[in-house]
Amino acid sequence: MTLEPNIQPASTGRSQIPDGVQDRFLAEAVRRRRAESALRECFARWGYWEVIPPTFEYYDNLSVGAGPRLEQAMYRFFDRQGHTLALRADFTPQVARIVASKLYDQPMPLRCFYMGSLFRYEEPQAGRQREFTQAGVELIGANTPAGDAEIVALAVAALEALGMAGFQINLGQMAFFRALTRRLPPDLLASVRQAIDHKNQSRLAAALDGVEDGHRQLLERLPDLVGGVEVMDEAQALCGRLGGADAAMAALERLASVYRRLEAYGVAERVILDLGEVRGMDYYTGITFRGVVPGLGWPLISGGRYDDLIAQFGRPLAAVGFGLSVGRALLVQDRVALPVTADVLVHGCHEGACLALVRELRQQGCRVEVDVLGTETASLAAEARRRRIPRSLRCEGDGWVLTDEAGQRVLSQRALLAEAVGWARPPDRVKGEGL
Amino acid sequence: MTLEPNIQPASTGRSQIPDGVQDRFLAEAVRRRRAESALRECFARWGYWEVIPPTFEYYDNLSVGAGPRLEQAMYRFFDRQGHTLALRADFTPQVARIVASKLYDQPMPLRCFYMGSLFRYEEPQAGRQREFTQAGVELIGANTPAGDAEIVALAVAALEALGMAGFQINLGQMAFFRALTRRLPPDLLASVRQAIDHKNQSRLAAALDGVEDGHRQLLERLPDLVGGVEVMDEAQALCGRLGGADAAMAALERLASVYRRLEAYGVAERVILDLGEVRGMDYYTGITFRGVVPGLGWPLISGGRYDDLIAQFGRPLAAVGFGLSVGRALLVQDRVALPVTADVLVHGCHEGACLALVRELRQQGCRVEVDVLGTETASLAAEARRRRIPRSLRCEGDGWVLTDEAGQRVLSQRALLAEAVGWARPPDRVKGEGL
Repeated sequence: MTLEPNIQPASTGRSQIPDGVQDRFLAEAVRRRRAESALRECFARWGYWEVIPPTFEYYDNLSVGAGPRLEQAMYRFFDRQGHTLALRADFTPQVARIVASKLYDQPMPLRCFYMGSLFRYEEPQAGRQREFTQAGVELIGANTPAGDAEIVALAVAALEALGMAGFQINLGQMAFFRALTRRLPPDLLASVRQAIDHKNQSRLAAALDGVEDGHRQLLERLPDLVGGVEVMDEAQALCGRLGGADAAMAALERLASVYRRLEAYGVAERVILDLGEVRGMDYYTGITFRGVVPGLGWPLISGGRYDDLIAQFGRPLAAVGFGLSVGRALLVQDRVALPVTADVLVHGCHEGACLALVRELRQQGCRVEVDVLGTETASLAAEARRRRIPRSLRCEGDGWVLTDEAGQRVLSQRALLAEAVGWARPPDRVKGEGL
Repeated sequence: MTLEPNIQPASTGRSQIPDGVQDRFLAEAVRRRRAESALRECFARWGYWEVIPPTFEYYDNLSVGAGPRLEQAMYRFFDRQGHTLALRADFTPQVARIVASKLYDQPMPLRCFYMGSLFRYEEPQAGRQREFTQAGVELIGANTPAGDAEIVALAVAALEALGMAGFQINLGQMAFFRALTRRLPPDLLASVRQAIDHKNQSRLAAALDGVEDGHRQLLERLPDLVGGVEVMDEAQALCGRLGGADAAMAALERLASVYRRLEAYGVAERVILDLGEVRGMDYYTGITFRGVVPGLGWPLISGGRYDDLIAQFGRPLAAVGFGLSVGRALLVQDRVALPVTADVLVHGCHEGACLALVRELRQQGCRVEVDVLGTETASLAAEARRRRIPRSLRCEGDGWVLTDEAGQRVLSQRALLAEAVGWARPPDRVKGEGL
C-alpha cells in the first residue's frame, strides 16, 4: 500500500516464497480442481448456490464474531485513505454481511456455498497453511432441527463426494453448554471451556470449584458424554435433577431431534454425539460439529449453528453451516495416478488442413499438443515419448500417419476421427474441467 | 499484520465493502464460474495445465519486470519478520518463478495456464476493479513463430469459448520497436512510446526531433502502420532504406511468419497488424497483442512474448503468453436468462424412504431442495412457487405426489425417477459444474 517499506526488504532468493503458502501445479493442481469441482457439484445438487465475496475487505467487518485468536491471525493492511483492510480469515462473516445487505429479500431459507482461499497468520505445519482453500455452505433463515440435520448430512455427502472414507462427525450442542454456564463469569467460562475441550479432568475440577453441586457434576461429566443416544439419556437424567434447567433440556431435545433426522438420512452411523464438543467459532449458538478422521490431528470440517451473527450486520436471521478444508481432505485422500500429458502430439505442419484437423480433435474433447519446435517428422514419435504423450500424428498427402504403442498406421481423416473418440482417457480427466 | 492500526479505523457501516471489490452471487456467480469452466476446458484441449500460485508472496519477486505503474498499484504489507509481502498484481512473474525453480526439468515446451484474482490499487471504473479475475496461458521454452501463433490462435479460441463475437486481435511486434529505438536514451524512449501508443502525431514529432532522418521517418509512420499484410510491405520498404537495420528486418520477418501461421489456423480475419502496438508489460520482447471489442474502452486480452523474464529467476527460458480479464468479457457477453432455482422442492417428511428418494434424485443430477421449515403439505405447491421452483414433491403411502405446472399427479417411485431425468434443465447448468 502507500506505506513504504521502512523495514528492511526480504533477503530471500528469487525462488523463495513465504512460509505457509504454496505453489500447486501438474497433478497436484488437477487433484485440487477436481476436488473443488466435486464439491460444487455436490452443493448444487443439495440446492446451494455460490457466493463469491472479495478476497479482502474492511477489517471491522471481517472480525465480527471472530474471537481474539482469529483476530490475531488476520493479515491486516491499509488503503490510501487509512482504512484498515484485511485478507479474509473466515468466510462466514462475509456471507453474513452479503445476506444481510443484499440477499435478505430472497425467499428464505436461503442456501449458499462458497469456495476459495482463507488467510491466517499461524505457525505453518502439516494440515495448517497460511493460505488454504476452504469450501463451505450456509443454510439461512431456518432455525429447525431439519435445517441442522441437512447441514450435518451435507457434510457427510461432501466428504463422500471427495472419495473420503473412515471419517466421523463429532456432533455437539453449544446451546447446552451455554445454558449450563450462563451464570459463570467470562474468565471462568473460558477456563471451563478450555478444560472440557482438552478433556483435562483435573483442570476442569479446579475451574469448577465453587460452582453449585448439580451444575458442577454435570459439567464435570461433559468430557465423557461421548457416544450414541445413551449419552443423551444420561445428560437428560443429570439435567432433570437441576432446577431451572429448561434451556439446557430444550437444547438436549433439539439435539435428539437432529439425531433422529440423521438416522432418516442414513448417516447416523457416521455421527458420534459429543456433549464435550465446545470448541469452534465464538459465534456458534446451537449444534456444533467437526468432521474428523481418527488419528488425524486436525478436523476436515468444522460447522455449527450461529443464530446471532447475521443480526450484527443488521438483519436477525438464523443460520447454520460448515467449512471444509480442501487441502486437508487432499492430504488424506487416496492418491490415484494422474498422468498429466496430452492425448496426442501433432506435427502441426502449419498448413490449413492440418490445423483444421487439430481443431476437430479438440472439439471432440482431446487434449492436443501441436509441435511448435519444428521437430523433424522422423523424430516425432521419439519427441512424443520424451513428453510422455501416448501417440503422435502427422499429415502425409491426403492421409494421417498415427504412431502409438501398436506401431505406425496410415489412416483416412474419417477413420482417424473415429479412433480419436477413445483417446480422451476418462480416469485422468477432471469431470467437467476438461482435464 | 502485526502493525497495529495506528491510523483511524474505517468509519463505514457494516454493509460497506471497499471501493473496487465486489460481491458476486446468484446468476452473476453462476455466469462467472461458467466462464472459468469454459476457459479451463479450452486451455486443457490445447494441452495446457494449470498452475496455482499463492495469492501473496514477497514483493521483490512479484515486482520483477513490473514497471513503475504496476509497482505503484501493488497492495503491500508486512509479515512479522518484517518481510515486505504483496498481493499479486500479475500472474506472469509468479509463473516465471515457478517454472524457473520447480518446472525447469519438465520436457519443453511447457504449457501452463492460471486463473484467479489479481489486485491493483487503481481508480475503480467500469471494466477496472481493484480485485479482478484473470485467466491466462504461458508457452515456455519455444522461441518460434509457431509458438507465437499458437498463443494468438489460443487467444481467439478462448474468446470464442466465452461466446464472444465481434472481437479482433491487434498484433504488434515489440522487437521491431525495440530494434528501431535501441539507441534512444530511456526518457526519450518513454516519450516516444507514449506518443505512439496515444497516436499523438504532434507529440511524437516533437519527441523525435533530433533523431536521424531514416529512423525518425519510420517511427513517425508507426501509428499508421495498422491493417493487413500491406502494412508489412510498407514497413519493410521503409526499413530497407535504413542502414544496420537487420534486427528490425528480422523482427518484421518474424511477424510475417506468425501471420502466415495465423492464416493456416483460420483466424487471420480476426487479426489486425499494428506496428504502433507498443504498450503492455515492460517485459515484452517480441510479439505483443491485445484482444479488443471495437468501441470498448479497454482490452479483454493482453499478451506477448517475454524471453528475458524467466532468466531473472535463474533460468534462461523463452516464453509467450496472454492474460484475459474474465470480468471484462462478462461485461460484454450476451446475457442469457439464468434462473437460479432448484429443480424440485421435496416435502422431506424426514422418513428414511423419503430422504432415500431425495438421494437418488441428486445422484441423477437434480438440484433438490428439501423443505426444512415444516411447511404443511397443503401449502407445499405454493411454497415452491414462492421459491420459483418449477415443481414440488411429497410422499404419500407407497407413492409420490408430484405437482408442477401441469397439475398434480400420483406416481410410483419408478415412474417418478424416469420423469426426473428431464428435470435438470440443461441451458441453466454450468457444464461440469453441476449448476
